[in-house]
Amino acid sequence: MPHDQRPIGVFDSGVGGLTVLRALQAALPDEPTVYLGDTARVPYGTRSAATVVRYALNNARTLVKRADIKLLVVACNTVSAVALDALRQDLPIPVVGVIEPGARAALAAVGRVDAGIGVLGTAGTVRSGAYPRALAQRGHTGVATAVAAPLFVPLAEEGWTDGDVPRLVAARYLQALPADVEAVVLGCTHYPLLAPVIALALAESHPRARVVDGAAATAVDVTRVLDEQGLRAPSDTHPTHRLFVTDSPEQMARLSRAFLGREVSAAQIELIDVEMTA
Amino acid sequence: MPHDQRPIGVFDSGVGGLTVLRALQAALPDEPTVYLGDTARVPYGTRSAATVVRYALNNARTLVKRADIKLLVVACNTVSAVALDALRQDLPIPVVGVIEPGARAALAAVGRVDAGIGVLGTAGTVRSGAYPRALAQRGHTGVATAVAAPLFVPLAEEGWTDGDVPRLVAARYLQALPADVEAVVLGCTHYPLLAPVIALALAESHPRARVVDGAAATAVDVTRVLDEQGLRAPSDTHPTHRLFVTDSPEQMARLSRAFLGREVSAAQIELIDVEMTA
Repeated sequence: MPHDQRPIGVFDSGVGGLTVLRALQAALPDEPTVYLGDTARVPYGTRSAATVVRYALNNARTLVKRADIKLLVVACNTVSAVALDALRQDLPIPVVGVIEPGARAALAAVGRVDAGIGVLGTAGTVRSGAYPRALAQRGHTGVATAVAAPLFVPLAEEGWTDGDVPRLVAARYLQALPADVEAVVLGCTHYPLLAPVIALALAESHPRARVVDGAAATAVDVTRVLDEQGLRAPSDTHPTHRLFVTDSPEQMARLSRAFLGREVSAAQIELIDVEMTA
Repeated sequence: MPHDQRPIGVFDSGVGGLTVLRALQAALPDEPTVYLGDTARVPYGTRSAATVVRYALNNARTLVKRADIKLLVVACNTVSAVALDALRQDLPIPVVGVIEPGARAALAAVGRVDAGIGVLGTAGTVRSGAYPRALAQRGHTGVATAVAAPLFVPLAEEGWTDGDVPRLVAARYLQALPADVEAVVLGCTHYPLLAPVIALALAESHPRARVVDGAAATAVDVTRVLDEQGLRAPSDTHPTHRLFVTDSPEQMARLSRAFLGREVSAAQIELIDVEMTA
């Protein structure tokens, strides 16, 4: 079987995608990775589609040029919603987003194509209609309802992940979902940090529904693509993991334990400029 | 008395500075204005100082070049905290920030130089130490305590300005202030929208303290500079007001009633590129 030692590239608008990187590193412990957080231009969720496409191409080309990646994971729901086609046309390597795996995981969780499915995401992801579209493309015939939940991002970054405030915020967002939803997709990479409190609020408002996190599903999808295309790395007990940011390594360092599951110092995070070639 | 028909320029990282523009238009109804919201790069509060200076110079030069402004109001606490000196060195016109007026209004509110004063702001404003420094420069000898309150921004933008969630969030931030503070400065232009609920929470936690909003004080300062330098516009019942954004006129239009006090349609908001000359 062929091997490919090049790293998997992962990018997000900021630190949120570290939750996807964490799931990838857990599923594929031999693979080197390189992560780019475009922290100088975060957040993407409020930007126009044209701007998001431009930023996504900047980030992707930077990872190809600087790190010679073999596969790109778009660990950002906003970018996956509006820029996946542009990235696939532009890049010579496979591109995996987070929306298709999240939609597939939701359908697997409900087990029926006509079940009601809810999605919580940024304003941009909701506006794009990407989750309902991805669900319909996989045969979903039930009602898909997407609700913007922008307060979850600062709650996650502040570390306010339990107690009254996040519970009340979650309850208020979940009120907007139909009573018969059976699964709620966390459609933003920040939200897994709030999964326990969202599950608590969901048990009150929608007792039949379960929370679906697409990060693990994304790791499954990446594994499948690597295997199909003969891109798996050789067995390695110490693969290299690099972290790039476009601003403020200190902020990523501060949030690394909560989002990546391990402490990283600012000195281990490389501050770079992205290629403004798009 | 000489007159100057050129507009007053106002910029902010996004829509928050519209609360300052609103105070200016109320205090100076004859003055034409031009507002630039750098919505493509918002928020500045989490960016490094070097990045904020670069963005501020881009915005200021754009207003000078495109709109021939006679005075610049930096309606952004983050920029006022770190970039005012760079702007004053770079521009041939007077520059007024929001921190000095806010500090002066707080001292006027407490009436004593040794009173405890609290400040709520973004992480960047708090980290800069700009409010304690501005207070000390005006003779304040008491304790000044600044607390980062990042959740207030999405609460204001979501329109969640009353009820349990903002009250609990405010109470939690105010807990971090010493018991003897006598004034709390709203050190971010988004926070005036939450002033009623912050005042309610403050009455519980710090019954002797009052809320200070620097926007009105900024308008007083601008009036003084215009008068001193002979820059007042001639009397005009219909001065021109222009709004620029660097991304998503729709978002500013949606928030215009809450932040500016009147409805503006997206068609009335000009989408521009800023001068990348810094």
